[in-house]
Amino acid sequence: MQNLQLTADVRLRHLITLAGLPRAVVERLLDRAEAMRRDSDGGARPLDLLAGRTLINLFFEPSTRTRTSFDLAAQRLGALVINFDIERSSTVKGESLLDTIHTLEAMHCDAFVVRHKESGTPETIARNLRSDAAVLNAGDGSHAHPTQGLLDAFTLRRRIEDFPRLSVVICGDILHSRVARSDVDVLRTLGVRDLRLCAPPELLPESNSGAFAQCSFVSSLDEAVAGCDAVIMLRLQKERMEAAAIPSEADYFARYGLTRARLARAKPGCVVMHPGPINRNVEIADDVADGAQSLILEQVANGVFARMAVLAELLERR
Amino acid sequence: MQNLQLTADVRLRHLITLAGLPRAVVERLLDRAEAMRRDSDGGARPLDLLAGRTLINLFFEPSTRTRTSFDLAAQRLGALVINFDIERSSTVKGESLLDTIHTLEAMHCDAFVVRHKESGTPETIARNLRSDAAVLNAGDGSHAHPTQGLLDAFTLRRRIEDFPRLSVVICGDILHSRVARSDVDVLRTLGVRDLRLCAPPELLPESNSGAFAQCSFVSSLDEAVAGCDAVIMLRLQKERMEAAAIPSEADYFARYGLTRARLARAKPGCVVMHPGPINRNVEIADDVADGAQSLILEQVANGVFARMAVLAELLERR
Amino acid sequence: MQNLQLTADVRLRHLITLAGLPRAVVERLLDRAEAMRRDSDGGARPLDLLAGRTLINLFFEPSTRTRTSFDLAAQRLGALVINFDIERSSTVKGESLLDTIHTLEAMHCDAFVVRHKESGTPETIARNLRSDAAVLNAGDGSHAHPTQGLLDAFTLRRRIEDFPRLSVVICGDILHSRVARSDVDVLRTLGVRDLRLCAPPELLPESNSGAFAQCSFVSSLDEAVAGCDAVIMLRLQKERMEAAAIPSEADYFARYGLTRARLARAKPGCVVMHPGPINRNVEIADDVADGAQSLILEQVANGVFARMAVLAELLERR
Repeated sequence: MQNLQLTADVRLRHLITLAGLPRAVVERLLDRAEAMRRDSDGGARPLDLLAGRTLINLFFEPSTRTRTSFDLAAQRLGALVINFDIERSSTVKGESLLDTIHTLEAMHCDAFVVRHKESGTPETIARNLRSDAAVLNAGDGSHAHPTQGLLDAFTLRRRIEDFPRLSVVICGDILHSRVARSDVDVLRTLGVRDLRLCAPPELLPESNSGAFAQCSFVSSLDEAVAGCDAVIMLRLQKERMEAAAIPSEADYFARYGLTRARLARAKPGCVVMHPGPINRNVEIADDVADGAQSLILEQVANGVFARMAVLAELLERR
Repeated sequence: MQNLQLTADVRLRHLITLAGLPRAVVERLLDRAEAMRRDSDGGARPLDLLAGRTLINLFFEPSTRTRTSFDLAAQRLGALVINFDIERSSTVKGESLLDTIHTLEAMHCDAFVVRHKESGTPETIARNLRSDAAVLNAGDGSHAHPTQGLLDAFTLRRRIEDFPRLSVVICGDILHSRVARSDVDVLRTLGVRDLRLCAPPELLPESNSGAFAQCSFVSSLDEAVAGCDAVIMLRLQKERMEAAAIPSEADYFARYGLTRARLARAKPGCVVMHPGPINRNVEIADDVADGAQSLILEQVANGVFARMAVLAELLERR
Repeated sequence: MQNLQLTADVRLRHLITLAGLPRAVVERLLDRAEAMRRDSDGGARPLDLLAGRTLINLFFEPSTRTRTSFDLAAQRLGALVINFDIERSSTVKGESLLDTIHTLEAMHCDAFVVRHKESGTPETIARNLRSDAAVLNAGDGSHAHPTQGLLDAFTLRRRIEDFPRLSVVICGDILHSRVARSDVDVLRTLGVRDLRLCAPPELLPESNSGAFAQCSFVSSLDEAVAGCDAVIMLRLQKERMEAAAIPSEADYFARYGLTRARLARAKPGCVVMHPGPINRNVEIADDVADGAQSLILEQVANGVFARMAVLAELLERR
């Protein structure tokens, strides 16, 4: 995979996954996100780095924040953005995905931002390109969501410097979560040692190997948050509750919802994150989501800067 | 409300309603619309006033002309426009409206243009913002449609100077019309005294108080137009016909449609307006809609200039 | 028609059809497409010819490639593009097509790109405009698809110079194909003499008069391709198979699909074209579509340059 997403001189070529991405590449991206935040004056000042470049948003799953975040990131760097409406596209007419990609490449496209419910679709696209376009994975199945991982690491790094000493909890539907995988990947790379995964037993992976190697599995959220520095809550897909034998949202909240009482068990100043959109009072209590320890909207803001950084690394002319 | 939409030094902060907006503010907006018309060479020359600004069109109801008009107005001033597709958004996933707004604010958004079927939604949004973004009401329920009121006043003022001596008829479904309310608000503010409202009895408000204070209620259109200077016809929502005990479009047209014969009862040169889209031969005869006295397309053209004026007042850097 | 689409001094005013368009006009467009390809560095460098111009994409039929191609062509020339979503428009509210057009014109629009399932719609719009906007036909019923014809001629001309000596086969649903008509129109104008149309008998026009005057009708594809220089395969609308008494896709492919074996009967180096999206192994074999003789993606690339050329001819300020 690194042969796919990195050039021989270790520059980013595509962004498919954070798994295995060298620490130097990750840190350069985070540093660049910080520079984007500063240079764009928090989003108020457009930059000109990608003038003349064309980015195509290919969202096969609906999305608010991720698509808009990429759209703003690209346009604020001066790129031309085409939002490709999948329902109305020729995929409806039975054209294959790769024929659609090759067609868009032929129109001269510099990057594809791809979200798809099937794990592996962005990689398949990247392996079959006929031009030197870049592929950015905007979330594929339960596989990866690398820009979310980057923005989460960026948000955390702006608050807490000493990653090796951090204790981080990720709670929710770990089994199906691409966010959990990308967060674990990037936090590991940046040196976080104590990663605690909390979920209903049916929503935990079978073993802490592979993506989740050396993570602790904890079934009680009370126990998981004890003494931690950061809690990342995941969105509950409601259809998962049944699979997890949880009869109701209230029941899920009672067992796995982040409340002030639970948060009080963490270290003072423990930060709270969530990739959004949040289910209020299902996975997170109102007063925690809106409280002083919540970085949820900060994550959204940083998402634009992280994506600007990735786009600039991938697309600026050298 | 004025505390919400005006700053302490009487500058526009949001545009939610024209009710109570000081005459000086309205006149400054109309003067600025005239300047926009001139400076943009009728729409042919883009201006640069809002370069780097981000506007989000949030339309919870479908709309052709208003959304496109705002889109063109903002882009011709150099702003970046995101058309936010509500059907595909996270509101589908159950995220609350305010969480969606706060998320978009976090991405750095300078203005929200909001259309919603519920009266009061733009005000709710404006009261709950966490940034200094501006809210522009693009039509909420039967409450207000302030940019329509402004463009109607602007269109009328370009033709007729002496507002205190004007007689203006508004005809159609007054009861449910946000256009009627905003038109009455702005025409009153600009000094129009003789305002005549004409509708089937079931589609007239209960009394000429509140928004419609001191308006005459006239049930016969023949009588209403007698000697008037301007007639504003409203679009008939077809489902209202039943409520008004009108059995057919032909029947509505016979009683409340603007024909040449009826228009002949007005003053010579009486102008005809309609917010569009028109139902031909339901509320207005073809030859009146397309005739020399019709300002309907002039209203559309002026809509872009009026919106450019509002956007510039709200968003240009000082 | 030429009075409609050409000015008195033989400049392009609208582009509705290639039928009857003077050879000098066609050649100027193709020369300009070549210049666009060069000046834009294959699409990588934006140009500024249409800064301040507004183009509206009015697609009443879904389309991937044509809409995106026009969008990119216009934006790469600096124009502002509004993609007008017909399902959400006021045509839903019962407004007539011409009222929608006049409304958009009133907002100052320089060009309409129109695709519609009814033949003649772009012409109707062009005849009823109230401004000096240009109309570009992006495909109307079975009538014409002039930018496809231009890009096909452009693609062919870049490979083969001697048009009078060319033998060209067009194969597929000739009867209903706007592409076939526009291709025949432009190839005739440029001097191609030997045009062979191949289709199931039910999908051939009744006689080789009118649009298809002096074309050979050939029912066997083996026979048609013998000794030819170029084969243009058309997309099969699956519902046409029944009309043509063809029981299955496999059966269509056996009779009218372009395979390597069939292509071997053509001249060496015979080029293969298709307007896309392709139905693999229905009208064209995988190895032919992806083979060295295929110009299919080259057509897509050239489509952007051909559309840039048309837009520049129609819209640049003189």
